[in-house]
Amino acid sequence: MQAKFSSESLAVLTDVVLPGETNPLNNLFGGELLARMDRAASIAARRHSRRITVTASVNHVAFNRAIPLGSVVTVEAKVSRSFKSSMEIYIDVWTEDRESGIRTKANEAIYTFVAVDDTGRPVEVPEIIPQTDEEKLRYDAALRRKQLSLVLAGKMKPDEATELKALFTS
Amino acid sequence: MQAKFSSESLAVLTDVVLPGETNPLNNLFGGELLARMDRAASIAARRHSRRITVTASVNHVAFNRAIPLGSVVTVEAKVSRSFKSSMEIYIDVWTEDRESGIRTKANEAIYTFVAVDDTGRPVEVPEIIPQTDEEKLRYDAALRRKQLSLVLAGKMKPDEATELKALFTS
Amino acid sequence: MQAKFSSESLAVLTDVVLPGETNPLNNLFGGELLARMDRAASIAARRHSRRITVTASVNHVAFNRAIPLGSVVTVEAKVSRSFKSSMEIYIDVWTEDRESGIRTKANEAIYTFVAVDDTGRPVEVPEIIPQTDEEKLRYDAALRRKQLSLVLAGKMKPDEATELKALFTS
Amino acid sequence: MQAKFSSESLAVLTDVVLPGETNPLNNLFGGELLARMDRAASIAARRHSRRITVTASVNHVAFNRAIPLGSVVTVEAKVSRSFKSSMEIYIDVWTEDRESGIRTKANEAIYTFVAVDDTGRPVEVPEIIPQTDEEKLRYDAALRRKQLSLVLAGKMKPDEATELKALFTS
Amino acid sequence: MQAKFSSESLAVLTDVVLPGETNPLNNLFGGELLARMDRAASIAARRHSRRITVTASVNHVAFNRAIPLGSVVTVEAKVSRSFKSSMEIYIDVWTEDRESGIRTKANEAIYTFVAVDDTGRPVEVPEIIPQTDEEKLRYDAALRRKQLSLVLAGKMKPDEATELKALFTS
Amino acid sequence: MQAKFSSESLAVLTDVVLPGETNPLNNLFGGELLARMDRAASIAARRHSRRITVTASVNHVAFNRAIPLGSVVTVEAKVSRSFKSSMEIYIDVWTEDRESGIRTKANEAIYTFVAVDDTGRPVEVPEIIPQTDEEKLRYDAALRRKQLSLVLAGKMKPDEATELKALFTS
Repeated sequence: MQAKFSSESLAVLTDVVLPGETNPLNNLFGGELLARMDRAASIAARRHSRRITVTASVNHVAFNRAIPLGSVVTVEAKVSRSFKSSMEIYIDVWTEDRESGIRTKANEAIYTFVAVDDTGRPVEVPEIIPQTDEEKLRYDAALRRKQLSLVLAGKMKPDEATELKALFTS
Repeated sequence: MQAKFSSESLAVLTDVVLPGETNPLNNLFGGELLARMDRAASIAARRHSRRITVTASVNHVAFNRAIPLGSVVTVEAKVSRSFKSSMEIYIDVWTEDRESGIRTKANEAIYTFVAVDDTGRPVEVPEIIPQTDEEKLRYDAALRRKQLSLVLAGKMKPDEATELKALFTS
Repeated sequence: MQAKFSSESLAVLTDVVLPGETNPLNNLFGGELLARMDRAASIAARRHSRRITVTASVNHVAFNRAIPLGSVVTVEAKVSRSFKSSMEIYIDVWTEDRESGIRTKANEAIYTFVAVDDTGRPVEVPEIIPQTDEEKLRYDAALRRKQLSLVLAGKMKPDEATELKALFTS
Repeated sequence: MQAKFSSESLAVLTDVVLPGETNPLNNLFGGELLARMDRAASIAARRHSRRITVTASVNHVAFNRAIPLGSVVTVEAKVSRSFKSSMEIYIDVWTEDRESGIRTKANEAIYTFVAVDDTGRPVEVPEIIPQTDEEKLRYDAALRRKQLSLVLAGKMKPDEATELKALFTS
Repeated sequence: MQAKFSSESLAVLTDVVLPGETNPLNNLFGGELLARMDRAASIAARRHSRRITVTASVNHVAFNRAIPLGSVVTVEAKVSRSFKSSMEIYIDVWTEDRESGIRTKANEAIYTFVAVDDTGRPVEVPEIIPQTDEEKLRYDAALRRKQLSLVLAGKMKPDEATELKALFTS
Repeated sequence: MQAKFSSESLAVLTDVVLPGETNPLNNLFGGELLARMDRAASIAARRHSRRITVTASVNHVAFNRAIPLGSVVTVEAKVSRSFKSSMEIYIDVWTEDRESGIRTKANEAIYTFVAVDDTGRPVEVPEIIPQTDEEKLRYDAALRRKQLSLVLAGKMKPDEATELKALFTS
């Protein structure tokens, strides 16, 4: 199974914020953004694996900036690393100023998807080759996050989480 | 006001087809696709004009291929030509095969948007510089479509629609 | 197959504009109106053909007037002419003043639908008999629009589009 | 304030049943039909009163027939009687067979709306003049329903509900 | 078939009022509330019967208080009485003040559901044992409502509606 | 500011899975579940703080079990611990078998909300007093998660994350 570039999986979902998608403060409702990111991430996972993919977990989403009604929001999702049948998807959310056109990072999120066959059983996916500096940083951090998630779930002993442990004991 | 490239306005909206968006034949409901194209086109118009933009007309939409439930649909919208305060937006809709990754053109559409100020009055927008062969073809055809729409609306005499007339009298 | 009156296919969809259907200017979102018109047109096409019908194209939609939140909107769709298996649907959109009850034309649109059998193959539909003056005007113009659409699609030579050509050469 | 005909308030909402509006048995979801009837009834109340109107109660809805996915559903709402500032709206719901075009009654419902001014205070509405036999039957029954609802709410003594009492003591 | 307590069927649906669910006065749209109550009632009916259940009728809904955008709304549905295969569901709707936390009754509604087997045929459901004073009151009134609904539908002679008749002739 | 019990903030959102909320495999769409959990969590945060609350982050969501169309889903959200102005919300998602009534844990999630005043500035919230064993476990783990999130964000040195460090160095 041939490894693929992270950039080959890029999925871009640019859309506006409509009134039916806002919270009482007239900003994009958190739940709606979570749903958009889930759809973009599922497309990235599918492009990398060419398989049916299902959401396995949402590892981290930071809502740093409110996104007002009428904004143009760009959700960019890319596979940052793969592990056998699972893929970590890194998602960047941007808004842009109408007059200047300047883009501002609004949110980041990390989702995990699993590739499955028609019966729902996990199947292997290609490895990722990171190219840009950012892709490499995210690729390396993905392993620490994987270990962390295994430790927190009680499926790995802290001692075996070598990458993660280094953070605390060095 | 400085002219801009057609490609600077490109808006990409990649999304999946969910069950709530399908017709009784389990294909993407026509109305939902019209709505997605409208949102993508409004973003392209906004990126070109950096103004508030409103839909003026839908000039042509051809539904060539049904898009089944679960498909990944990519809507790409780009300003093909501008006329004072109005912009013609050319929209290409693609689906992609999950296993091979091959993209197929599913639909084309042409929308017109107008740039307005805060009081809703039309304001001037930059001209378009087409670059690729396709952009140039669409740029030229946009003038014929503009004339045609004026003739059909009774706002231009057929005799004055020089570009259009050439089609029938040459 | 017996010809039918245009009026027999009339479909009326009266509904209010809810907050979830508005754009950032608090007017009915263009995409939502396109979707409502598509549903009304599909019912008119079905009433004329008594068949499964699918959207073939949106030929023209003019957004002449914004429709504010809370308005009562009436979409009236009627088959204006049929061609073998396709039907041109003419759609009028009205709003009404709450206090005076006066109706104002807000938009017009022209959609084309095709009647199909269970396997999706086109099937013949009855001819249309126009009765009112407006129905007759629209019936005649439908032929010119049909020719125009064939010419623009490269499926008819301008020389053969006799009805249309008359516009430019008389 | 001049009395008006029941028929002047008629609101017709014809629409299809889309997949996102069905229950797990693939029939129109009860809640969605309740919502459609509420919107149609509010338009009838508004046409009669030319005022802002708000739902006061749903008095009776009988779900006699399931309405399958893909059906064409026609909701017809008409003011059956008015009482000072309230209006009883009688709603008939029809489906139609695609091949034969025959309409079948699927549901009936009775809603009550109140006309209010901008501050939300009830205002008087015109009386209703029933014309057809059905309109007269519904007009008469509306008084019994009004009395019944007052008795059940403890706002009228059973003895004073003369119309209603006659049912049980004659 | 063993009788069950009313409280065993309790279904609680607490949710916020989002902008897409409001009417032009920025209060929860009546149709949306009807839909939420229908879903909560169907869950209560299902918990009592452990069967597929379908909405048979909406007997009474009083919209006493408008519920503003951003409110927290709690819908509580409980089977109040069962009759062979049908169940009366009593629904209470509450809002709560954000600062004081005090709950206020906003609406009440009564729905009837029927339990069916896979072929849609009615099946028997357990009886209800009311426990609290409120449950007992509702249990008793349910019989009068049942008789009333039969009388109004012409399926029971007023003379036989003994519980109901007592209201008017005592 | 008086500490409050975790249980005082409990928000319960029981609802069915409708066809418009499913993915192509006919299971509850991940994005829709994320949105439901966000709404339930926001209500729990509001009940604890009696303030406006906004989503700050989604720390962890595990999608362990697919939830099929037509299921009854219960989302239970409770504040597990508070830190100055932020609150960790622990969410349990249950489905129940229609015939046996047995509840099964389908998902768990952890969201963080912040309480703000009308100008959007963070305000202090009451402390949490855990009571049950589960509440105590989650209360303790919340501190480790807080430290972890600060470490990963580069806002705390690993050495200072005493609770977390103990996991790896003991």
